[in-house]
Amino acid sequence: MTDLAVIGGGQLARMMYPPAIALGLRLRLLAEGPDVSAAQVIGDHVVGDYRDLATLRDAVADAPVVTFDHEHVPPEHLRTLAGEGHSCRPGPHALLFAQDKIEMRTRLTEDGIACPRWARLTEPADADAFGAEVGYPFVLKTSRGGYDGKGVWFLDESDEFPDTPDVALLLEERVDFVRELSVLVARSPSGETATYPVVESRQANGICKEVIAPAPDLSAALAAEARQIAERIATTLDVTGILAVEMYETRDGRVLVNELAMRPHNTGHWSIDGANTSQFENHLRAVLDRPLGSTEPLAPVAVMVNILGGAVDDLVAASAEVMATDPSIKIHLYGKDVKPGRKVGHVNVLGHDPDEVLARARRAAAILEGPS
Amino acid sequence: MTDLAVIGGGQLARMMYPPAIALGLRLRLLAEGPDVSAAQVIGDHVVGDYRDLATLRDAVADAPVVTFDHEHVPPEHLRTLAGEGHSCRPGPHALLFAQDKIEMRTRLTEDGIACPRWARLTEPADADAFGAEVGYPFVLKTSRGGYDGKGVWFLDESDEFPDTPDVALLLEERVDFVRELSVLVARSPSGETATYPVVESRQANGICKEVIAPAPDLSAALAAEARQIAERIATTLDVTGILAVEMYETRDGRVLVNELAMRPHNTGHWSIDGANTSQFENHLRAVLDRPLGSTEPLAPVAVMVNILGGAVDDLVAASAEVMATDPSIKIHLYGKDVKPGRKVGHVNVLGHDPDEVLARARRAAAILEGPS
Repeated sequence: MTDLAVIGGGQLARMMYPPAIALGLRLRLLAEGPDVSAAQVIGDHVVGDYRDLATLRDAVADAPVVTFDHEHVPPEHLRTLAGEGHSCRPGPHALLFAQDKIEMRTRLTEDGIACPRWARLTEPADADAFGAEVGYPFVLKTSRGGYDGKGVWFLDESDEFPDTPDVALLLEERVDFVRELSVLVARSPSGETATYPVVESRQANGICKEVIAPAPDLSAALAAEARQIAERIATTLDVTGILAVEMYETRDGRVLVNELAMRPHNTGHWSIDGANTSQFENHLRAVLDRPLGSTEPLAPVAVMVNILGGAVDDLVAASAEVMATDPSIKIHLYGKDVKPGRKVGHVNVLGHDPDEVLARARRAAAILEGPS
Repeated sequence: MTDLAVIGGGQLARMMYPPAIALGLRLRLLAEGPDVSAAQVIGDHVVGDYRDLATLRDAVADAPVVTFDHEHVPPEHLRTLAGEGHSCRPGPHALLFAQDKIEMRTRLTEDGIACPRWARLTEPADADAFGAEVGYPFVLKTSRGGYDGKGVWFLDESDEFPDTPDVALLLEERVDFVRELSVLVARSPSGETATYPVVESRQANGICKEVIAPAPDLSAALAAEARQIAERIATTLDVTGILAVEMYETRDGRVLVNELAMRPHNTGHWSIDGANTSQFENHLRAVLDRPLGSTEPLAPVAVMVNILGGAVDDLVAASAEVMATDPSIKIHLYGKDVKPGRKVGHVNVLGHDPDEVLARARRAAAILEGPS
């Protein structure tokens, strides 16, 4: 008997497992390989390719509900599974807006949700017109498939048009932002939502590196606006499970939606140790249509810092030094081979003063990354 | 590659798994059956009898460290495993004092640690002499094998000597206690200790039912004394991993040691949600000789209430009602078949006022037990 099938064996699936254990839920995994992050810890797993329908059918066979570690399962397969009686959460009609940036921008613009100025690129000359309108440099993105800074180019007035893959492209103004914010909403099929505090997210080389919860010194009005935008997107797109809305806080005091993700998100990892109910537990509760848990923080400040693959190969061994240095640090390792810049774990720290808590978390992550 | 083997597949082993996942530790289980509590969630498990040396050897084969879900592994087998290069933590020399109450009382008395008055029973007439000395009723216990109120008799002056099994017995005064307290200490082989706040434990029919952390209105002096006693026992008996010391708080303001357990303990389950580092994480850190985590509480009050098997068969389904009633309750289910009075899960609640927090936890547990 399986309560839930999870497609994709990365760290997000891995981190869904502890709350599944606590709640007595039986979880089946479809993993890309026998030793990927989640397959190391979830005994009940099938190894195979999520792009293959027969493999998907096998993995979800006795699971009434199907959810995801990533957004890459082909929508036509999800529609087939849905037709065969499985509830895919989020469903393909919602996932589309996390898979395709042109679809997302089109829909949010129709719904009157503030986004950076943007345009679809149909021919290279569109870029000149767009630059003339919004100014240089601006951003060129692939509509699908980009992540962690890949599939993104910055175009200045004198730049040649870059060598892009043969996929749909869009143009976006480069927002002059103060910082990046993120809001997570858990939403269940019956329409209940639970929203986490607005957090500040700091990137390095296009990869999320640090998250501070809640975002320091954010005005109550802007925080409320950010949460309302996220809740409105969750509802209007009929998202189920966790929706992450990444936003820019602009110099003139607005928030503009940057990206959407429909799964537990890096900007919510602080909640494992820092909130009454973690994003992973609320994702499970949401996709199973159970009442959602409190998103209340457990401390005035929580900070998450990612561990990016560096000079340290044996993270388990190195974590002893972190433990010795600071007995309050919470370490989360993903069981991944260390490769340069790869997300291989994160640390969480709770406390009162954002600067002090951030400094402690950075020190811990630095030990686990080693000298650069 | 295995970092740690755990012998015994009950809920304690099950609850060791989430922190093992977070810390990137590879854990192998020896389970009593293919679907016992921990075997449901720990994929890497061997099924077999922990009393059988060949089975033990198979389960711990590539594990440098061995620890336990219970205290019942035969000490001679542990000595054999130790001789073959495995570190058994706690070791058989320490476990003896959790396995045998006469050994425990003898040793604590030698060490000057306050216990109830007691005597070994060698012939039934010893009971009369003991009753004349300490008063009636007093307690008769089996030295080994008792748990959750089993192996315990109360003897009044007019009672016939009961029909006891053919094992060593001891006599103890019946302590006129105000309440029961418990202190947990994590201790590593290198001698580091981390002590949790003193908690109040409330029993029903000899089974732990409720725990309030910290023990309300406990004087600072008595709390310090209780913690010192627990730390002294951990050190003098060379315990590794979690030591639980159950104590009586007497009407005249003393603490007397009742029982010892050398594994994560029911009176520490609150720490999963209520402390910076749970007893399960600190047990793992201790037995692997890694620096210990902070035992700092995350809220002024944490309450744990056990779910004892009752009228509700499908706990997973019933937990939706708890979630709907109180979004802050933390539910922990053990995946066990429901049998009357069996510990099948627990709930944790954090808050400020002990009475209010206790009431919320009781309400949640009552939903999961059903009408009695």
